[in-house]
Amino acid sequence: VAALLLAISGYRPEPWAGALSILRGACDVRVWPDAGDPADIRYALAWKPPHGLLAGFPKLEAIFSLGAGVDALMRDPTLPAVPVVRYVDPDLTGRMREYVALHVLAHHRRMLDYAAQQHSRLWRELPQPAAREVRVGVMGLGVLGQDACVALAMLGFQVAGWSRTPKKVAGVACFAGAEQLAPFLARTDILVCLLPLTPETEGILNMRLFRLLARDGALPAPVVINAGRGGLQNEADILAALKGGVIGAASLDVFAEEPLPDTSPLWGHPRVILTPHNAAWSSPEACARAVVRQIKAHQNGAPLAHVVDRSLSY
Amino acid sequence: VAALLLAISGYRPEPWAGALSILRGACDVRVWPDAGDPADIRYALAWKPPHGLLAGFPKLEAIFSLGAGVDALMRDPTLPAVPVVRYVDPDLTGRMREYVALHVLAHHRRMLDYAAQQHSRLWRELPQPAAREVRVGVMGLGVLGQDACVALAMLGFQVAGWSRTPKKVAGVACFAGAEQLAPFLARTDILVCLLPLTPETEGILNMRLFRLLARDGALPAPVVINAGRGGLQNEADILAALKGGVIGAASLDVFAEEPLPDTSPLWGHPRVILTPHNAAWSSPEACARAVVRQIKAHQNGAPLAHVVDRSLSY
Repeated sequence: VAALLLAISGYRPEPWAGALSILRGACDVRVWPDAGDPADIRYALAWKPPHGLLAGFPKLEAIFSLGAGVDALMRDPTLPAVPVVRYVDPDLTGRMREYVALHVLAHHRRMLDYAAQQHSRLWRELPQPAAREVRVGVMGLGVLGQDACVALAMLGFQVAGWSRTPKKVAGVACFAGAEQLAPFLARTDILVCLLPLTPETEGILNMRLFRLLARDGALPAPVVINAGRGGLQNEADILAALKGGVIGAASLDVFAEEPLPDTSPLWGHPRVILTPHNAAWSSPEACARAVVRQIKAHQNGAPLAHVVDRSLSY
Repeated sequence: VAALLLAISGYRPEPWAGALSILRGACDVRVWPDAGDPADIRYALAWKPPHGLLAGFPKLEAIFSLGAGVDALMRDPTLPAVPVVRYVDPDLTGRMREYVALHVLAHHRRMLDYAAQQHSRLWRELPQPAAREVRVGVMGLGVLGQDACVALAMLGFQVAGWSRTPKKVAGVACFAGAEQLAPFLARTDILVCLLPLTPETEGILNMRLFRLLARDGALPAPVVINAGRGGLQNEADILAALKGGVIGAASLDVFAEEPLPDTSPLWGHPRVILTPHNAAWSSPEACARAVVRQIKAHQNGAPLAHVVDRSLSY
């Protein structure tokens, strides 16, 4: 009997197990740690499974990631040499669009300043550029990054994107590669990071990069928004950059350690908007639909979509 | 000599006077209270001028409003019987789009809850519907309201609009008139008010209306956002509705009295996001360009655009 193994750590698996009932007919659903006969497992839907777990299934044909990022999977040195599939779905894309639009607008419209003024019962208008006078830069031009660029352009911002390899996005100035990172940053007032976490991108959001952001913008200081992975950011550098005025504010959805430790000074920082890694939640229903679509195609001999390039780790 | 009178109260007129220098050639610019010979004044660009002021210019041909709303002008019982022109410009429309998108997203993504959690160093994900599961209703389908509807639909929300007379907006369910107000509210989780303030709309945001909002939404409780005019809202009812759970939160940019008095409990309310009537600031440059466009057309015998219907007060 062919089966899919749901291997989730850190969350209750029940909502996903329930949503995967739509697989019935195509294959069985087993919920880790109750995998049953290891030889039954053809597919895995996984979120941060323990290293070594997936190597124990000799007939595994594909691993589906429950989230957009596959960095946790790729760090397993025993990961079987089968296709690893990223989670790509309009539901996820829409949720990330909401997060990016909200946080870019929040900083553009100086929401932290107005919240402080409200607290002090201070009625005062602050200088306010229009969106078309503000330059947003999106790092990472995959499905999520391209969609975010289009939404930001529709809201009126001047939008540019940066990616490892050259991309084309209508209405968006596209920069690519290490040599175009500095010019991209030099025209960026609000930086949005949606990069995958790979050996190449680890710690990329650091003081050296922050110092390259635009100093001539219409906002008081550059802003950094990270909804990629915590490993992309140097949290000590973010705090130092805020203190030194190198950046004026940050929205962080992801952290080096999650949950963010109680002791982190990011929690209480007046210029930081924190969220608990919920920028783009994987809806069980949407995720299950995407997996079922792929499994049915795969069983009919069609190629899997959104397969990770192992040489690039994403 | 033909002249335009800049009659602004409550703001320094200098930025607008400077921006109006692009009128040179077409007509003189006088800054109230230095009107010079009253017979020179052909046009006025006005923001809350004292009642009676504009009646003192016998050759006045048109009055331009410096803001989108003309209610303050229309309350002057001595207002001369010349065309009153609303300020309509892509700059203003874009700024209102920013405000509406920001505040709808902020409540949709439960920013007040997450700010409180951040304050308590609490890492906790809250239930989060996707935008397509949330119904936004926009009251007022003029230029600003229609644009806001389109932006909200692009962000993924289910959008409906309500207006005095029937309108058609692509992708937006349009309701009209008193008899369709209840069904419009019954399908609305987040209400955005962009109505003009007229005798008909005064105090429309009251407890009776709040009770008609959807009770079956994906968010914990309905939300009210008012960027129209303070006179549209009953502030005691907003406080009572928040207290009674009839609404869960509000964003208010406008108030019955502005600046909002120190003593207002709205200032310190944890479920209210206040801004100092800056949802859509009139940029002097954009406003001057719009006025110059109209004056040049008028001098060439073309009709003025965006003229107020006196029988409707907007």
